[in-house]
Amino acid sequence: MTDGERSPAHRDDRAHVFHSWSAQRHLDPMVVTGAEGSWFWDEDGTRYLDFSSQMVNVNLGHQHPKVVEAIKAQADVLCMVAPGHANAARSELARLLAERAPGDLDRVLFTNGGAEATENATRMARLHTGRQKVLAAYRSYHGATAGSITLTGERRRWPSEPGIPGVVHFWGPYLYRSSFHATTEEEEGERALAHLRATVEAEGPEAVAAIVLETVVGTNGVLVPPDGYLAGVRALCDEHGILMVCDEVMAGFGRCGEWFAVDRWDVVPDLICFAKGVNSGYVPLGGVLIGDAVAATFADRAYPGGLTYSGHPLACAAGVASIQVFEEEGLIDAARRLGTDVLGPGLAEMADRHPAVGEVRGLAAFWAVELVRDRATREPLVPDGATGAAAAPMQELVAACRERGLVPFVAGNRIHVVPPLTTTREDAEEGLARLDDALAVADRHVGT
Amino acid sequence: MTDGERSPAHRDDRAHVFHSWSAQRHLDPMVVTGAEGSWFWDEDGTRYLDFSSQMVNVNLGHQHPKVVEAIKAQADVLCMVAPGHANAARSELARLLAERAPGDLDRVLFTNGGAEATENATRMARLHTGRQKVLAAYRSYHGATAGSITLTGERRRWPSEPGIPGVVHFWGPYLYRSSFHATTEEEEGERALAHLRATVEAEGPEAVAAIVLETVVGTNGVLVPPDGYLAGVRALCDEHGILMVCDEVMAGFGRCGEWFAVDRWDVVPDLICFAKGVNSGYVPLGGVLIGDAVAATFADRAYPGGLTYSGHPLACAAGVASIQVFEEEGLIDAARRLGTDVLGPGLAEMADRHPAVGEVRGLAAFWAVELVRDRATREPLVPDGATGAAAAPMQELVAACRERGLVPFVAGNRIHVVPPLTTTREDAEEGLARLDDALAVADRHVGT
Ligand SMILES: Cc1ncc(COP(=O)(O)O)c(C=O)c1O
Ligand SMILES: Cc1ncc(COP(=O)(O)O)c(C=O)c1O
Repeated sequence: MTDGERSPAHRDDRAHVFHSWSAQRHLDPMVVTGAEGSWFWDEDGTRYLDFSSQMVNVNLGHQHPKVVEAIKAQADVLCMVAPGHANAARSELARLLAERAPGDLDRVLFTNGGAEATENATRMARLHTGRQKVLAAYRSYHGATAGSITLTGERRRWPSEPGIPGVVHFWGPYLYRSSFHATTEEEEGERALAHLRATVEAEGPEAVAAIVLETVVGTNGVLVPPDGYLAGVRALCDEHGILMVCDEVMAGFGRCGEWFAVDRWDVVPDLICFAKGVNSGYVPLGGVLIGDAVAATFADRAYPGGLTYSGHPLACAAGVASIQVFEEEGLIDAARRLGTDVLGPGLAEMADRHPAVGEVRGLAAFWAVELVRDRATREPLVPDGATGAAAAPMQELVAACRERGLVPFVAGNRIHVVPPLTTTREDAEEGLARLDDALAVADRHVGT
Repeated sequence: MTDGERSPAHRDDRAHVFHSWSAQRHLDPMVVTGAEGSWFWDEDGTRYLDFSSQMVNVNLGHQHPKVVEAIKAQADVLCMVAPGHANAARSELARLLAERAPGDLDRVLFTNGGAEATENATRMARLHTGRQKVLAAYRSYHGATAGSITLTGERRRWPSEPGIPGVVHFWGPYLYRSSFHATTEEEEGERALAHLRATVEAEGPEAVAAIVLETVVGTNGVLVPPDGYLAGVRALCDEHGILMVCDEVMAGFGRCGEWFAVDRWDVVPDLICFAKGVNSGYVPLGGVLIGDAVAATFADRAYPGGLTYSGHPLACAAGVASIQVFEEEGLIDAARRLGTDVLGPGLAEMADRHPAVGEVRGLAAFWAVELVRDRATREPLVPDGATGAAAAPMQELVAACRERGLVPFVAGNRIHVVPPLTTTREDAEEGLARLDDALAVADRHVGT
């Protein structure tokens, strides 16, 4: 369609839909009309390879027939029931999650999404410990409600401040831009732990309810922690009776080649927050996996939190079917192989060819390509929080990807390569080739 | 089934589902296996008349075939798309809502539920006005995330405190337990307004971003404001550049016999929060309806909030179908008639017969029966926040209702009669008869 004759869907969107994280005036969203597997298409029938998994949530790919069928079957039986009753879909999903979660994480409070998960984990930690302070990382995203945005460690927090009291931010490991002047992964991990310990001690260990962190940092850069870091956080928590809360809203459900990303390092947190990949977002769902200690606190004392759609049958039915698909199709392994066989080597090669690529990092189906103007100084292609003209180089790159039928996830000066775990080798290679081609646009800014 | 042989759904629930607002140890939830219209049933096939609409959300009744069909049809096409793209279901629902919302409330930010709606309305009001304070009512519920629970004006807030800074609570109109020693509705309304004005002035009008209130208070008592009260709040807001935010998560979508409850008093707020009845909760959905002034603030300035599932296609498709059903079946009118022809007169009669009934109040499909030990002193049947033995009289009453196949909504010392708007006259009368019978259990406590 030409600009003059936009569709009703586009017209109504511009007139009536208020979009998140955006100035509203000049938006021109693509009208997505359908999708299948790793592809989606717009009103003109143009097909795009989905290297974003939308918001890094359609881990099973679009419109997986078994999950769609499960939603339809549940819709025929019972769409909604109050949280105070029980229902089979909710019970089964809770059991399937408990069976797959590490350690004693055997109970689930279901929510609608990730923000409510981190909100409830924070409340649980405070009430369980009787302590007020919560430590959360810079370079993190935990949601956009008052509590979850206060935990968030990036610029999107500021307009919502002052937030909830008692949240303190610390720096996590990120060797490429080390806060600790480290030169090896090992050193970065050790120094990050020393920094965290010093921060806990300066804040008063007996005042700290929880350390909240993304197991692998997502939106803020696909930051994979050095081996030993998470175990060190666990030990520090144990030493002081602090709860370890891992936010796996983005990192869980195969994204890192594990059911839960902590499994890669054999660490058992006290609480795990999840959403997205649990049912690929076909129906909104999130939750908190709860270990025995916290569960015991609320055995005889009422838990003071909830929401109308906690344990929503339709959402849970989609979750049950998703877990079955994960197993039937061996998707945890498939995600690993996608990383080791295709995305990892493919991106590494690409990095060699493109001077604008400062670093490629990631694992399984979770990769970031960090773009710079200068490999030596590591000056980002666009500054953090850039808007308008300052953001143009990234916008050009995104446009170049789109022209080539590729939609990656974009954050700051990074392209995140986060396709569905079901992406075929062929499609993954096709997407990499398109990205390779588009990156020429970024190279032009090198040295400018 | 006997206690010895509980079903897998019950067993898995008890082992793995963490229930909201509850101590976990002694829960024994009913396993709901199916539902239709105003009825749902458990594993044994026992049928219950739903006078709760679950969480006062299945306004269309259970499993309305047209909404179920719409969900299934959308599931076949596209379950999920990122908020940054557009899609037909979201665009259409936004337009349908804008067409029905009062005044200039023409844009919608979609959320998953009610808490995220009040969270986002609060953020919008603060950023739009550049002011920090928010006034909210005692006897209100606005959700359980950090911001929404801070707005909440009841005991469920306390365990989550300290909450967000800058929230101040005021008292709203409630003649039966007047905070203002009023003896008529008119006097109650005037005095409540004077109290609100005094509170605004004491807090500093130029520091107040918003007054947030439930148009008709729901969970805290079905408190219908006296005529003139909401217009008075609107005028007070206008005088000081304060935003009027109406939370219609429970009161909207026909519950009060109007599309939006404010329509009954011809008042146009700056923001309306909705959820529940918008699609009867078949798929989690909520949102904020936004007037021109606030929308203009974010025309060129990025709105700093969002969520992964904003404008979820499946949820919006259910919303589109719901609005169509409302119109085809004339459900706004039907809800009014349910109130004027059946529930209102039926409950009034019942009040005469039962000494435990202190007051019956409500409108359309939204009624409360307030229970007392003594009509003269108005001593509540159970004290506010009662647990254990102190709560027994209400628990007995609820059990008596269940034995008679009736499930009402229960809060404090009140039974809320809030059936689906589609409830037939026959079913409504049947439910009232069952309630009438059960109330004998409450009468026994009168004078004790
Ligand atoms: C790690 C993490 N936590 C929490 C959230 C918030 O989830 P939601 O958008 O569903 O509220 C996100 C969303 O991207 C996330 O990536
Ligand atoms: C008036 C009102 N606001 C907000 C909420 C919170 O909605 P949710 O439970 O969907 O978060 C409720 C829930 O009952 C409500 O009644």
